[in-house]
Amino acid sequence: MAVVKVSLGPRSYSVHVDPGGLDRLGSLLARRYDTRRCALVTSPRVFRHHGRRAQASLSRAGWAVETFITPDGERVKTPTQVAALHRRLAGARLDRTHPIVVLAGGTLGDMAGFAAATYLRGVPLVHVPTTLMAQVDSAVGGKTGVNLPQGKNLVGAFWQPGLVLCDPNVLATLPEKEFRSGLAEVIKYGCIASPALLARLRTTLTRGTWPGAQELGRWIVECVRIKARVVSLDEREGGLRRVLNFGHTYGHALEKTRGYGKLLHGEAVALGMVVALDVSRRCAGLDAVTEGSIVELIKHCFPDLSFPRVTWTAAAKAMGADKKTTAGRNVWIVLQRPGRPGVFTPVDADVRRSIERARHVWA
Amino acid sequence: MAVVKVSLGPRSYSVHVDPGGLDRLGSLLARRYDTRRCALVTSPRVFRHHGRRAQASLSRAGWAVETFITPDGERVKTPTQVAALHRRLAGARLDRTHPIVVLAGGTLGDMAGFAAATYLRGVPLVHVPTTLMAQVDSAVGGKTGVNLPQGKNLVGAFWQPGLVLCDPNVLATLPEKEFRSGLAEVIKYGCIASPALLARLRTTLTRGTWPGAQELGRWIVECVRIKARVVSLDEREGGLRRVLNFGHTYGHALEKTRGYGKLLHGEAVALGMVVALDVSRRCAGLDAVTEGSIVELIKHCFPDLSFPRVTWTAAAKAMGADKKTTAGRNVWIVLQRPGRPGVFTPVDADVRRSIERARHVWA
Repeated sequence: MAVVKVSLGPRSYSVHVDPGGLDRLGSLLARRYDTRRCALVTSPRVFRHHGRRAQASLSRAGWAVETFITPDGERVKTPTQVAALHRRLAGARLDRTHPIVVLAGGTLGDMAGFAAATYLRGVPLVHVPTTLMAQVDSAVGGKTGVNLPQGKNLVGAFWQPGLVLCDPNVLATLPEKEFRSGLAEVIKYGCIASPALLARLRTTLTRGTWPGAQELGRWIVECVRIKARVVSLDEREGGLRRVLNFGHTYGHALEKTRGYGKLLHGEAVALGMVVALDVSRRCAGLDAVTEGSIVELIKHCFPDLSFPRVTWTAAAKAMGADKKTTAGRNVWIVLQRPGRPGVFTPVDADVRRSIERARHVWA
Repeated sequence: MAVVKVSLGPRSYSVHVDPGGLDRLGSLLARRYDTRRCALVTSPRVFRHHGRRAQASLSRAGWAVETFITPDGERVKTPTQVAALHRRLAGARLDRTHPIVVLAGGTLGDMAGFAAATYLRGVPLVHVPTTLMAQVDSAVGGKTGVNLPQGKNLVGAFWQPGLVLCDPNVLATLPEKEFRSGLAEVIKYGCIASPALLARLRTTLTRGTWPGAQELGRWIVECVRIKARVVSLDEREGGLRRVLNFGHTYGHALEKTRGYGKLLHGEAVALGMVVALDVSRRCAGLDAVTEGSIVELIKHCFPDLSFPRVTWTAAAKAMGADKKTTAGRNVWIVLQRPGRPGVFTPVDADVRRSIERARHVWA
């Protein structure tokens, strides 16, 4: 059990990484909030696996719980779903004091987090992430949002949770494909901030087994620590926080051109990192051996993933709609070496070459 | 020409009250922002009267303007309209540096302000309010939002503009009914913070003429000063800011039960203030003579307005859905005397009596 603090002045909060902690959700929440009424937002799949336990834990601690089960996935991460959730929250007459507890993976967490950010101009939000992706990344940092036809997360708000509970044990019920998707973000954190984490990942994963609960807990804590540090220094992505987008520029473009949901977010980021590593070698001096070894680690995590064929025109258009675009140019996060990220704006020709080479290397 | 500063640390901004200032919009904006591309959001009616002048002023100062004309009114202040505007902003590939300039009254200002608060997780927002209501109240303070079937402004965000330009001259094209509606908020500011403003209003309005541009400008500056002070002390409505809701508890309930748009916001607030003044006399020691004289002033501004018949059950239900409700009880802003507001939670019987008496007094 580890507690990582995200320091943001009056918006500070703790991330509890606690195996079996789901059974302690109610009492943890009771220590944080004065009221004893809350909303529990979850998906049909997650509710089937963990819903009753979450409800029971909350009830034991005296909480009256309104449960809202709503579909999950990139294709339903839309303004329409937010509006539907808003109507249900208002229908249950939840007020500004009642926390919204989101027991879900990253996409539903983003959507329900945005609903919390905007219901009654903002109500308390608690994340209980149920995927590796959400535990190491999306549940921490306050980014919420939904997709538009023109791009991912184009609508949203910065809204910090008041509490985050990561229970690594719940990951046991995660489909393997989802688990692998989360590994992409773990690798990302290794790339941008922790060569030691990269080494641990390599040691464990190339053994051909999955990590045990203890090892997994360590990875989560390390990622959360990195994210907490970055977010504390740059809450609203004025500069430093952009390093978290390593692998995301082309990753988002892939997700968009393939249609949200066809490719998992982590799968897209994995391929996006392969491209970003090539851009890094080309433009930021990353050495080829290091590049190769990280690419091998990524390939090891995604053995069955194929690199989609997307025309340059479509990819360039999709990258142009990315909200990190400033004045029409794409900003890439590159690595000088693991743990030393930078910001670079490559010319189109280099990006194009890197995509070609990444596809070749991946095959 | 007066400039009122809203002091909110890094989110501070200026409100320019400037007769004829619409022609200086472009240069004012150019002093505030580095980019030279912006969105102009306005309604068909406002565009007809002022759109070309706003566009010309922006163009003269070197701005590339994307104009979005969208319907205005409480009935279209909905999540659906926000989503539509988001898609249009994304379609025009506006990025995080481009300000959204809202040339509109209060309802469209709220809706487009919310769109700015949530597009790309928040982009710069400039209000150029075109109604008295918006100039004295809604354009300042950062409240944005839209309505749900369950109540007004139940979805929204706090999002401060970077600049506000109030040009009293544009009010000349305002329908008289809209102008009267705005007077309700001016009276509200007099009630909660400025006996001197109440006296000025009485002197001018009971003369049977409308105020000249100079006098009107003075009212606007006085209201904006009061609002700026309140908002600076309590940005997110933790306490003090609630005084701005004087007349709004029953006012919102009237708007809701009559159906948004049937009764203008100011008309509902006017009647809500008559009820709140009675509650104030009953529960907060407001003397009956003062109460009577303010009610007379309100009646003077709304000679043709009738007090809608709403059953107690319907009103109580509507007030229960107001987002100021905490733990099921309704908080009222009451006056001990003009300029001395307080917070009170009356019992239902008193509220009921006050509504009955207000209807009687109004008739």
